[in-house]
Amino acid sequence: MIELAANRYGKAAIHLVRVARDPGGHRVRDLTVAIALEGDFERSYTDGDNSLVIATDTMKNTAYAFAKDHLDGAIEDYGRALAEHFLEFGQVDRATVSIRGHHWLAIDVAGSPAVDAFVRGGEGTRVATVSATPGGTTVQAGVEDLVVLKTTRSGFRGFPRDRYTTLPETDDRLMATKLTAIWRYGSPDLDADLTFAAVRATLLEVFADHDSPSVQASTWIIAREILRRHDEVDEIRMVLPNLHHWLADLAPFGLVNDGEVYVSTTEPHGLIEATVRRGEEG
Amino acid sequence: MIELAANRYGKAAIHLVRVARDPGGHRVRDLTVAIALEGDFERSYTDGDNSLVIATDTMKNTAYAFAKDHLDGAIEDYGRALAEHFLEFGQVDRATVSIRGHHWLAIDVAGSPAVDAFVRGGEGTRVATVSATPGGTTVQAGVEDLVVLKTTRSGFRGFPRDRYTTLPETDDRLMATKLTAIWRYGSPDLDADLTFAAVRATLLEVFADHDSPSVQASTWIIAREILRRHDEVDEIRMVLPNLHHWLADLAPFGLVNDGEVYVSTTEPHGLIEATVRRGEEG
Amino acid sequence: MIELAANRYGKAAIHLVRVARDPGGHRVRDLTVAIALEGDFERSYTDGDNSLVIATDTMKNTAYAFAKDHLDGAIEDYGRALAEHFLEFGQVDRATVSIRGHHWLAIDVAGSPAVDAFVRGGEGTRVATVSATPGGTTVQAGVEDLVVLKTTRSGFRGFPRDRYTTLPETDDRLMATKLTAIWRYGSPDLDADLTFAAVRATLLEVFADHDSPSVQASTWIIAREILRRHDEVDEIRMVLPNLHHWLADLAPFGLVNDGEVYVSTTEPHGLIEATVRRGEEG
Amino acid sequence: MIELAANRYGKAAIHLVRVARDPGGHRVRDLTVAIALEGDFERSYTDGDNSLVIATDTMKNTAYAFAKDHLDGAIEDYGRALAEHFLEFGQVDRATVSIRGHHWLAIDVAGSPAVDAFVRGGEGTRVATVSATPGGTTVQAGVEDLVVLKTTRSGFRGFPRDRYTTLPETDDRLMATKLTAIWRYGSPDLDADLTFAAVRATLLEVFADHDSPSVQASTWIIAREILRRHDEVDEIRMVLPNLHHWLADLAPFGLVNDGEVYVSTTEPHGLIEATVRRGEEG
Repeated sequence: MIELAANRYGKAAIHLVRVARDPGGHRVRDLTVAIALEGDFERSYTDGDNSLVIATDTMKNTAYAFAKDHLDGAIEDYGRALAEHFLEFGQVDRATVSIRGHHWLAIDVAGSPAVDAFVRGGEGTRVATVSATPGGTTVQAGVEDLVVLKTTRSGFRGFPRDRYTTLPETDDRLMATKLTAIWRYGSPDLDADLTFAAVRATLLEVFADHDSPSVQASTWIIAREILRRHDEVDEIRMVLPNLHHWLADLAPFGLVNDGEVYVSTTEPHGLIEATVRRGEEG
Repeated sequence: MIELAANRYGKAAIHLVRVARDPGGHRVRDLTVAIALEGDFERSYTDGDNSLVIATDTMKNTAYAFAKDHLDGAIEDYGRALAEHFLEFGQVDRATVSIRGHHWLAIDVAGSPAVDAFVRGGEGTRVATVSATPGGTTVQAGVEDLVVLKTTRSGFRGFPRDRYTTLPETDDRLMATKLTAIWRYGSPDLDADLTFAAVRATLLEVFADHDSPSVQASTWIIAREILRRHDEVDEIRMVLPNLHHWLADLAPFGLVNDGEVYVSTTEPHGLIEATVRRGEEG
Repeated sequence: MIELAANRYGKAAIHLVRVARDPGGHRVRDLTVAIALEGDFERSYTDGDNSLVIATDTMKNTAYAFAKDHLDGAIEDYGRALAEHFLEFGQVDRATVSIRGHHWLAIDVAGSPAVDAFVRGGEGTRVATVSATPGGTTVQAGVEDLVVLKTTRSGFRGFPRDRYTTLPETDDRLMATKLTAIWRYGSPDLDADLTFAAVRATLLEVFADHDSPSVQASTWIIAREILRRHDEVDEIRMVLPNLHHWLADLAPFGLVNDGEVYVSTTEPHGLIEATVRRGEEG
Repeated sequence: MIELAANRYGKAAIHLVRVARDPGGHRVRDLTVAIALEGDFERSYTDGDNSLVIATDTMKNTAYAFAKDHLDGAIEDYGRALAEHFLEFGQVDRATVSIRGHHWLAIDVAGSPAVDAFVRGGEGTRVATVSATPGGTTVQAGVEDLVVLKTTRSGFRGFPRDRYTTLPETDDRLMATKLTAIWRYGSPDLDADLTFAAVRATLLEVFADHDSPSVQASTWIIAREILRRHDEVDEIRMVLPNLHHWLADLAPFGLVNDGEVYVSTTEPHGLIEATVRRGEEG
């Protein structure tokens, strides 16, 4: 017997901009949205029966329509409105809305922020995922592609050596990573903009302020401190590529390289992943 | 209490080329390899204790060293040698080796294939993932970024309509997708090159030869046929973006567009995912 | 005085698919088109006067409309029809149409090519640029992203050595490149499909068949031979990144690496550019 | 006769990081460098004679070596040192060094900038190109990938209409672009960091502050003002894709869209290029 074990469908890469035209200063929300549904859709696969299939084109339309009335607050709130809308369809067991929020700053004109002109930028991309089920709604938030660097206070030693080991131990290296951190909130009811900013600030501050004996330990130290400082966060997942910076060998040119010049690489890279959460007694 | 819920680490984007210099024709294996380990690594996170941490640099070295003696057959066999090597370390519970194989064809010179010159190409990228645990070794194979198109015999109708639905029903549309298909073999002991070629041929043939009432149904029809024809395959996962091709509106220019000219888009796109497997009685 | 020194505008990234529905086998033309105009457009810059500005949206519409009636032959012919159309506007001095043609092959079904199903692939991307002026129309054709490899018969020696030179001389190395070659035809009136295929075949064949003392010499040898064999071609420009493949150092692991295992890199890379043409007596 | 019409070679994608370890705060210079040489290199193409060919590997080594002693100031100064070094070789007629500078900000820790931890970010990428010839050295500076948006004060009307024109006129649209601006300094002797910051500020300020009748006019208005305010700049080249934001059609859902919700697109896009300079009397 051949059976459908799992399935999911939706619309991805819906790119929209919402402008709020406050006379004191326009506000720009620039999002890339993906919507995915799970539920009673088996027959669309096995029998070509589309009678329960909400068209992905309809999902796209709904994303645009909801941007009109539900996008004046946090992107998490917009995601929740969308996800809970799709959950209202009887055939849907889970609606997941994933959002990437692109950052725009008002341009400085003679010392004041422009009312109606913006430059896209910022460090990393803000992301949010809202998942609605009959049992409740879960909100995750996070950052992707946040590239950070420690110029000292990072080492790696005490690791085992075998036939294939050539890496020397080091007490002082550059540590660079393009990190992804996604955290889950205990409740969907929160000020998501405020909390996002606070968690992100902790993440950066702890990254800057700790001594790193390994990328592994750094993930733990950062994640643990986020859980300690932010009661709203129940769990955090981090993925850190170790973007190696090798001390350039300048000796053949008669030069000393005292932690000054590095060969910057992206491939190959280490890749460290960890999930840290509140335990039972948490 | 705060705890480490999951962790994994390794080396990614190891890019290597292996040349076998047969006088009758060189053979090129061009791979991007990623290695990930799970096991007794908690203390490297929570205590900065690296005494069990196989350096990711050592993983890279091992990948190059193993390319010398273990890469004359299928990429799955090389992946298995690597994964089972890392499993020999007592602290490792699972070693996963993921490989992307880049395709090279001998260049045609006056009607004969060159012995020592190649052009990179082919349709899609071959991938393989080998996961070794004390309980056994699992091999998955597949293709990524295989872009395919049906110029007819694809429709989408009978779907529900709500306030946000504007998509017309259609009996004849273009269907284009950049598909990923990953299948799991029941046993790691098989001729992986031969089986890969056969499954890939089935995938393309069924894609070409079926009538599609929806992308969902297409995934089922293709996956089911692969399971029917290839006993080696236990399960297959497919991810299909629906890369919409909209009939260009030529009416304003006084032209009839009878399924001739299409606006080709990649964003937004539908996204269909399904896993199909042999059931209990299978 | 501040003046406008040069200007050009147009529409880029127009992506269209044209299907010819021959019962014996559909034919797919899949293009990305860019159109650029030069001419009497200064006042649109300096005075905000749009009275001569053909809207780029109109260019896009025209590209779709012309795909209906002018895209049953070579992409160069379609490009020429478009370019010469825009030249008919009095304010236009030069219309340039650049096309990237994406390759589709009929899928094999039980040994025969499917009538209506295709897989995208091929080696490299075919490109064409047509430039129409009152003085005449120039057609260029070429390939981009054609990745090729010689596993032997490539060396590099006899170069000067200074304080910063550490590269050893070599008689035998891997040579890999992702080449761009753009050639100009002496006349726009030719069978562009046939000629493209012939020039591309020469390019690959000579790449495969020559001994390379440097990437520089390879560009010359290939370009010269194209000019010798193909009278239609007046000039050819080649850009070759030298994608270094370094012999992996397996000595620390007690292994001999006799031209077997290479570290494949893309950054940094050499970059060689040359233009070869028929001279006066040519 | 077949002849070499033009040639150039060098090393690209040299990625390096220079750390200055000031106790009061480390300073990070993170560059991607390309070096290209022109000169007496014909015989390396036509005769396989490498006796004058400075190896591109040597260029890479030199870039790392020079990072030690010549990279404590502006990237333009480092580029100049490198370019003028290569010009010292008798066979070199022109040495061009192109640099992309990646921006790092000190991370905020409890209100103060960290001494030794950084986050990569910023808006757009700073670029510089230094070209040294026996006749003198030219310095260009600029920005790439600077994404900016005007939420109002942008229109497009008064353009001609033909059979293929469907675009309505508009007095109020969103204008978004990912701009490249490259300007040439009259003299290489200047404070390049200071001048860069000043020109970039003007560019953003004028973008924000002007009323736009077309993208064409915007390029002129911005470029002209840069030349007016910054005597160091002789010429400026701008390339502006017009990243269309189409007002989403919410009418089918019974909603009014009063400049609130936009479909954000990148393809196809308008593409506007202009070079503005000081004229003879300038």
